Amino acid sequence: MIDDLRLHGSLIGRAAARAQLNTPVLVIDRDALDRNLAQMAAFARGHGIALRPHAKTHKSVDVARRQLAAGAIGVCCAKLGEAEALADGGIAQLLITSPVVAEPAIRRLAELHRRTGALMVVVDHPASAAALAAAVDAGRPLDVLIDIDPGLHRTGVASPAAALALVEQVRALPGLRYRGVQMYCGMEQHIARFADREAAIRDRTQYLRSVLALLAEHQASPEIVTGAGTGSHRIDAALGLYTEWQVGSYVFMDRQYADCELGDGAAFDYALFVDAGVVSANHPGIATIDAGFKALATDGGPPVIVSGAPAGATYRFMGDEHGLITDPAGHHVWRPGDRVCLAVPHCDPTVNLYDSYHVVSGDTLEAIWPVSARGRSR
Amino acid sequence: MIDDLRLHGSLIGRAAARAQLNTPVLVIDRDALDRNLAQMAAFARGHGIALRPHAKTHKSVDVARRQLAAGAIGVCCAKLGEAEALADGGIAQLLITSPVVAEPAIRRLAELHRRTGALMVVVDHPASAAALAAAVDAGRPLDVLIDIDPGLHRTGVASPAAALALVEQVRALPGLRYRGVQMYCGMEQHIARFADREAAIRDRTQYLRSVLALLAEHQASPEIVTGAGTGSHRIDAALGLYTEWQVGSYVFMDRQYADCELGDGAAFDYALFVDAGVVSANHPGIATIDAGFKALATDGGPPVIVSGAPAGATYRFMGDEHGLITDPAGHHVWRPGDRVCLAVPHCDPTVNLYDSYHVVSGDTLEAIWPVSARGRSR
Repeated sequence: MIDDLRLHGSLIGRAAARAQLNTPVLVIDRDALDRNLAQMAAFARGHGIALRPHAKTHKSVDVARRQLAAGAIGVCCAKLGEAEALADGGIAQLLITSPVVAEPAIRRLAELHRRTGALMVVVDHPASAAALAAAVDAGRPLDVLIDIDPGLHRTGVASPAAALALVEQVRALPGLRYRGVQMYCGMEQHIARFADREAAIRDRTQYLRSVLALLAEHQASPEIVTGAGTGSHRIDAALGLYTEWQVGSYVFMDRQYADCELGDGAAFDYALFVDAGVVSANHPGIATIDAGFKALATDGGPPVIVSGAPAGATYRFMGDEHGLITDPAGHHVWRPGDRVCLAVPHCDPTVNLYDSYHVVSGDTLEAIWPVSARGRSR
Repeated sequence: MIDDLRLHGSLIGRAAARAQLNTPVLVIDRDALDRNLAQMAAFARGHGIALRPHAKTHKSVDVARRQLAAGAIGVCCAKLGEAEALADGGIAQLLITSPVVAEPAIRRLAELHRRTGALMVVVDHPASAAALAAAVDAGRPLDVLIDIDPGLHRTGVASPAAALALVEQVRALPGLRYRGVQMYCGMEQHIARFADREAAIRDRTQYLRSVLALLAEHQASPEIVTGAGTGSHRIDAALGLYTEWQVGSYVFMDRQYADCELGDGAAFDYALFVDAGVVSANHPGIATIDAGFKALATDGGPPVIVSGAPAGATYRFMGDEHGLITDPAGHHVWRPGDRVCLAVPHCDPTVNLYDSYHVVSGDTLEAIWPVSARGRSR
C-alpha cells in the first residue's frame, strides 16, 4: 500500500491518470460500485431484510464504510484476522462466519471482543463453545450463532438435533449469548440457470425450516437467521426465512456471477477490473500481457476482456506472470505497452492478491484505498 | 509482516513453537532449504555452470542472500517491482527476465539502474530497445539480453533473424550493452517422464543452437546464454549450451515438481509447507481446514498432506477459506484445532499469498522472514 502511494499518489485527482498507472493494477469503477451498493440496499430494504454484507469479498475498510452508510447493520468476516483489520479501521459491528476454534485464535477473539464490544461469531461444535465461554469475560457475553451445515459438509452442525443441543449448551454457558442461526448455501450460489438454483435453494430452505421448527418446539427460536449470497438473494427474498443477508460479490461482480442468471431485476455491473499491459507482441493475432497467476485468481477460470482487444478475443493463463490474449480473427497487431482491461474471474481471491484498490471515475484516479485485510487469512 | 511479528515474534527461539502458530501459516524447513541450496550449488559447480536462481519463486531477500552465499552470481526477477524490493534489501546483481516496456516502468527501471549500477534486462522488440536506450544515461549503459521465444509464444523474438536484428540494434544504441541471450523453456519443465522431457528440451536446444550459429556468423556470439529450470537442469547440463541457469523451484520444491522425474541424483526435499488447522469436524472421515483459495495457489492442483491425517488422505479445495480433508477409510475422527501440514502444490504463487515465512528447524521457530516482494507484480 505504501509502495502504491509512492508510485501513484501524485496521480490522484488527475484526469486521464488511469492510463498512467503501472500494471497490473486493481481498479474499482466508483460509479459502478455506488450503483451496486444502492441496488442491493434498496432491494433488501424493500423486502424488510437487513444487510450484513460479507467483507471477505473486499477486505476493505473503505468499502465496509460505504456499505454501512447505505444501511447495512454490520459486516461479515470469514477469518478472525480480517475482523481484526476491519476493527483497526473503525468498523465495529462484526460477525465472524467461520468457526474460531484453535487456542491462540480464541485468545485473540476474546481480546477483539473486549476491544469492540460488539463481536458475533458462529459455533458448530460443543468443544469450541466451551472454549469460547471460558475465554471471554462473563460480564460481557459474546454473541453466538449456531452454524448449520446445508449439506456441503464444510462447516456447521450436521442435524436439527445437533443444532438444538448446541443452542441449549450455549444458553447454559455464562460467557455466551445465543442470538440465532447461520446457514450459508455455498454450493448453490453459482448454479447457472435461475430455475435450477431456485429449486436447490428451495430444497435447502425446507431443511432450514425443519431446524427452526425443532428449535421453536423447545422455545429456542432464533432472533437472527443469517445467510444468503449474491446468487440466491432474489430466491431467499421470496422464501422469506432469513432475517438478514450476507451477500458479498454484488459490490464488485465478477465473471463467475455474470455467467449466472441472477433473477428478475438484478443487474449488478462490473465494478472491479485488472488493468494489464502488453509486454510482448511478436506474432499477429496474439499478445502477452503482464497478468498471470499472481495477478488474477485462477480458481474461477479466465477473466473477461473489457477493452484493448477486438471483439471475441480471449485470455489464457500463461504462468505466474503472464496471460495470452488471442484475436479470434488472427490478425490484430498489438504493440508493447498497449493496455488491456479485464473484468476479474472471481473477485474475492483476486482482491487478496493486491495491496490496494485504485479507485477511478471515468479515467480520473479518485483515490487509492488499502485492501485492509489482504492476506489476513488467520 | 508487522502483524506476523506482533503475533508470533515472542515465539522465535522457542522449542515446540511451531504448534503454537496461528494458522494457516507458511513454513520453511530451514534444514531442507539448506540441503536444496547446497545440492543445486554443488551440481552446477561440478558442471562449470553459473547459477542465477530465479527469485520469483521466493521473493525473499533472506533466501536470495543464501543463494548468493552458496555461490550464485546474482538472482533473476520476473517483474521490475520484484527487483526494486530485492534492491531495497541490498541484493545488487539483478536480471529482469520479462520485457519491461511501458513508459512509466521504463522510467522506474532507469532509476533502479542508476541506484544499483548492475541491472540487466531482457528485450524482445525493437521499440522497447529504443525506449530503454533513451531512458538510461549513455555513460552507464544498461546490460541487455535478447529474449528468444522457445516456441511458447509468451515472450521472446520469433526467429533467428529477428534475434540477430535485435542484437545489431542493441549494439548500435549507446545506452545499451549487448551481453547475451535468454531462452527459457517454460512449457517443457513439468513434463512428467524424464525421457519425454529430455526429448523436448533436446529439440528446443537444437533450435537455440541454430540461433547461436547465426549470431556467430555475424560476430555476435553471446557472452551469456541463460535459461533452464528445475525440471530441465540435469538435461541442460548434458547438452552444455547454457552458461548459467535460472532455476527457481529447487529451493522449496512443490507437489508439481515432485510429480516429475527430475533425473538421476536430483533429490530435492519439500522445504515449504502450509500448516493449517481443523475448523470443523462434524462427520467421521472428513474435516474442514482453514486453508482454501486464499492460502494455497489453485493453478497447480491440490497440496500433499504431510502430517495430521491417516495415510492416503486427500485434500479438496472448498472455497476461498477452506479445504476438505478426507480419510479414504472413512473413519478417522478429527477434533477442532487439530493441525494438518501440507506441502504446497505450486510454490511461486502460493508464496505470493503470504507476508512472511515462518522458518523452523524441527519444531523450533528460528526466524520470521518477510516475503520481501510479495504482491510486487508490476
